[in-house]
Amino acid sequence: MPQLRKDPIIGRWVIIATERAKRPGDFLITKEKEDIKGKCPFCHGNEKETPPEIYALRKDGAASNKPGWDIRVVPSIAPILKIEGNLDRRGVGMYDAINGIGAHEVIIETPDHIANTAELPVGQIEKVLNTYVFRIKDLYNDKRFKYVLVFKNYGWAAGGSKINHARSQIIATPVNPKRVKEELVGARKYFEFKERCIFCDIIKQELKDKVRVVAEVDGFVVISPFAARFPFELWILPKKHNCDFYKLEQDEISKLAATLKLALCKLSKGLNDPPYNFVIHTAPFRHTEKHGYWKTIDRDYHWHIEIIPRLTQMAGFEWGTGFYINPTPPEEAAKALKEISCETELALAEK
Amino acid sequence: MPQLRKDPIIGRWVIIATERAKRPGDFLITKEKEDIKGKCPFCHGNEKETPPEIYALRKDGAASNKPGWDIRVVPSIAPILKIEGNLDRRGVGMYDAINGIGAHEVIIETPDHIANTAELPVGQIEKVLNTYVFRIKDLYNDKRFKYVLVFKNYGWAAGGSKINHARSQIIATPVNPKRVKEELVGARKYFEFKERCIFCDIIKQELKDKVRVVAEVDGFVVISPFAARFPFELWILPKKHNCDFYKLEQDEISKLAATLKLALCKLSKGLNDPPYNFVIHTAPFRHTEKHGYWKTIDRDYHWHIEIIPRLTQMAGFEWGTGFYINPTPPEEAAKALKEISCETELALAEK
Repeated sequence: MPQLRKDPIIGRWVIIATERAKRPGDFLITKEKEDIKGKCPFCHGNEKETPPEIYALRKDGAASNKPGWDIRVVPSIAPILKIEGNLDRRGVGMYDAINGIGAHEVIIETPDHIANTAELPVGQIEKVLNTYVFRIKDLYNDKRFKYVLVFKNYGWAAGGSKINHARSQIIATPVNPKRVKEELVGARKYFEFKERCIFCDIIKQELKDKVRVVAEVDGFVVISPFAARFPFELWILPKKHNCDFYKLEQDEISKLAATLKLALCKLSKGLNDPPYNFVIHTAPFRHTEKHGYWKTIDRDYHWHIEIIPRLTQMAGFEWGTGFYINPTPPEEAAKALKEISCETELALAEK
Repeated sequence: MPQLRKDPIIGRWVIIATERAKRPGDFLITKEKEDIKGKCPFCHGNEKETPPEIYALRKDGAASNKPGWDIRVVPSIAPILKIEGNLDRRGVGMYDAINGIGAHEVIIETPDHIANTAELPVGQIEKVLNTYVFRIKDLYNDKRFKYVLVFKNYGWAAGGSKINHARSQIIATPVNPKRVKEELVGARKYFEFKERCIFCDIIKQELKDKVRVVAEVDGFVVISPFAARFPFELWILPKKHNCDFYKLEQDEISKLAATLKLALCKLSKGLNDPPYNFVIHTAPFRHTEKHGYWKTIDRDYHWHIEIIPRLTQMAGFEWGTGFYINPTPPEEAAKALKEISCETELALAEK
């Protein structure tokens, strides 16, 4: 009998197929062997192939837009939002529009031509996370922006390009994301009812039940959530209650780097290097200055990372209902991924 | 400058790329040439290859599960919800689950091996629509069901199978779809503010502006909506205010058949037979018996069809924000599709 499960935060139903559940080997992953021919614009030495850098983590004394960097941040060459201009909120008959103002940056995660973040050393991933924090703090100063989404598209089926060089993206938006608002509203309702953070409660329940825990690491837990929308969907939850990702301390970032590597490595080994997306969900900018449910975000919300391997396709039912059909119960996904062992340095991080 | 546009019904923002807007020829559509080898289970003569029919439109005197039918409805062989059992609403620790009870039916739209509904005669599409109405009315009697979604997955990229025989699906669900609830809430808010139906207002604004109208037909209008999520997304809106699709009169169904054929034909000719989904959004069952915003659905809501050609991919930004990026302004989509002429019988239907 299939099961309908409700996402406890936003109330969305997911249909979990329990019979003939799909296991890792059941997903046919079409590998994109294709890579860029000629110069990769993201490799060290090819700095001139990108727009001038916004920021770079460089060895002492290395000049801008030249080799000698560990991480580079450059503007997107196909920005979906533009940095210059005013919002110009306006009506168009009965409709509403604003100018597409925002920032769209690309974080080049390594000077070497390595495709998957899972393959980077933990120390390098730590530099990537530090760069996210640095860029978010900088974009915070621009009063036109309400939110910054950090995300990654890995592989063609996940919306990635065919240049197999690890990078992530940052988009600052002048309006708050629908999905994040839904989480904020759900988390506030839960707090009002229970006087507890829903994410903190989820962590407690998962560590007690154990069946959906993929890894427990110092400071973080990796789970496949109860109402996972997608097969092998993973969430990384910080044990410490905190709504703002950018407020992480350096030692937390180190541990998060190891946790992220562990999660990505398990997916890569378990599912034969699948395409995936990840997103960091954090609180909107300047939430403490606001009224209404914005006012209690510190109390209600809990930043986290959602990782989505792209193994299934959305079809008419999903578009029409907003529900999802997940052919792999998260308990089976967690069990399969838990058994996959990654490198020693990660094993050490695990409790 | 890209534009952020707000969906007037549910308030979701869409980023419309205005520079380098993608035109029909810019979408690379990978054609699936593959078709079933051997017997197609949906062709006349092969009735034994499907589960026994739930319903069929048959020539007088033709026996069940034998040739002599125009439309057949059979249970899905891979149902996502099961018809037998009780809902058994229950808590699982802090979470909520119910049994996956529902109905999942396949409507075989023609006895002939024709892939795209766009190629069926208007009279045959009318029979398909009549079958939707008949099946919805029958499923209405099952008190466990709150909603029935009629939808179609055409082509592999739209979640269709590789058996190129036109069919659509009906799924009855024991909970109301998130997406439909969002529309109901948005439509009620609008009515409370304006004392008018938002869909009726959209029709008026579109017929006045003209720039997003693909076709105006007796009783219906086909538009690419102001905040279209996808390139060449189309909505078919009935001019007559009515929240329940299944309450359509026979003459309205005839006209809708011609309108649907016209819309699908324009997409097929304009975009080289793209994969697509369509969904019928109608009011939940038994809404007049309910309280709260359910009580005013008759007044607030307006059934419609949403057609989504599958030309772009969802990536991290869309998953993370719930926003969409549409590379083709709906005005350009409407202009391109308006210019495509379809057969005479359809031209006659056009005003």
